[in-house]
Amino acid sequence: MPQNIYDDPDFFTAYASMPRSVHGLDGAPEWPSLAGLLPPLEGRRVVDLGCGFGWFARWAAARGAASVLGVDLSRRMLERAVRETDDARITYHLADLDALELPPAAFELAFSSLALHYLTDLDRLVGTVRRSLVPGGAFVFSVEHPVYTAPTSPGVVDVGGRPVWPLDAYQREGPRTTDWLAPGVVKQHRTLTTYLGTLLRHGFTVGGFEEWRPTTAQLEEHPDWAVELDRPTFLLLAASVGGGG
Amino acid sequence: MPQNIYDDPDFFTAYASMPRSVHGLDGAPEWPSLAGLLPPLEGRRVVDLGCGFGWFARWAAARGAASVLGVDLSRRMLERAVRETDDARITYHLADLDALELPPAAFELAFSSLALHYLTDLDRLVGTVRRSLVPGGAFVFSVEHPVYTAPTSPGVVDVGGRPVWPLDAYQREGPRTTDWLAPGVVKQHRTLTTYLGTLLRHGFTVGGFEEWRPTTAQLEEHPDWAVELDRPTFLLLAASVGGGG
Repeated sequence: MPQNIYDDPDFFTAYASMPRSVHGLDGAPEWPSLAGLLPPLEGRRVVDLGCGFGWFARWAAARGAASVLGVDLSRRMLERAVRETDDARITYHLADLDALELPPAAFELAFSSLALHYLTDLDRLVGTVRRSLVPGGAFVFSVEHPVYTAPTSPGVVDVGGRPVWPLDAYQREGPRTTDWLAPGVVKQHRTLTTYLGTLLRHGFTVGGFEEWRPTTAQLEEHPDWAVELDRPTFLLLAASVGGGG
Repeated sequence: MPQNIYDDPDFFTAYASMPRSVHGLDGAPEWPSLAGLLPPLEGRRVVDLGCGFGWFARWAAARGAASVLGVDLSRRMLERAVRETDDARITYHLADLDALELPPAAFELAFSSLALHYLTDLDRLVGTVRRSLVPGGAFVFSVEHPVYTAPTSPGVVDVGGRPVWPLDAYQREGPRTTDWLAPGVVKQHRTLTTYLGTLLRHGFTVGGFEEWRPTTAQLEEHPDWAVELDRPTFLLLAASVGGGG
């Protein structure tokens, strides 16, 4: 099972103060790009893998989803999600995505935002998701980009007077421990080959692939985001069952 | 049009002495991986975009291809290709891939090895290839990996005692000038998003995606290839028209 860092009190407090926790989807710079990969939600059954505070679940319900099942490993996050949700179409389920079972052919959309890079068994989850989707169903997710997760010592460095991203160990998959919000956060580095190959091997058709980058407007508002032009931070993928995108 | 560096005498001499020029396909470490993405060739009509000395054209003909059209911008390379080819099924055509025209629905396989990163108009070529393929046809190609082409100042550097690949400018597409074999070689950097998005936009289905890495046996024979584990050099893609891989 993945490390449950979100129930660490220090991590939780720091995470809860991030723009995406305070402002929800609108506080996540990659959200407009990820939303652009989604199919229509009206009348669809949705599962959100790593639902956190339930921002996406409520957004999907507000767009007419027939039902939304939010799954997360963190009891703290689900407690807040339940408190902030007042919609009978939304249910939350405490579960480890590395051991999750889902009913077969039960959803039109599986969604996941920045959760899959915590899993130790991506192959198992992708197989579970594939079986839980109806024909024509979609799997849309974001993860930290492999170029972002790869380095053994991440962080921009100065080389000859210019900032560079010190890429190494890209082909060495496995855990990476960083001090992000709290010391000792463990994420799993996987190559793009593994992300795409796992989807293809389970019979998904890849319909969308995007390495998020800030828009010109975002760069004007946040000049420090220029680092995002040097290396991609977020990978967004859309796949479907049985053709189409 | 792309820079025609292969007809530069100094570049040509250096390139002609590389293992892949002396030993052909077997001298290219990524060749077994690329070959693994190819469909059966028996009876198929093949076009090779950037055919160089004709190694692949002769290999495909030896595996039963009905015809192979080799296209290259370099007169020097095609002169040697013609000299070393004795097979009526193989023809060579001197042309700039940025301006290439191909007959519609004329091929079952379009192949390209390490040529597309020279093009200034990838979108045009992919559209041309798409129209030249029959339904069920395949487009299999390799390019220098975007992580490899991105840096404004490429080359492994030492950071705190460990070698790293100094990634920057990943999201800034456009020409990169390096001193590879000869001074001032111009290649076009594109993101993975652009390579995959261009294929998807033209109606291709992605069936294979591989970031080449050396095998354990290759690493034992060439310990200096350990750098290949730090960052991918070659991107291999297989796409098809109308589903399948």
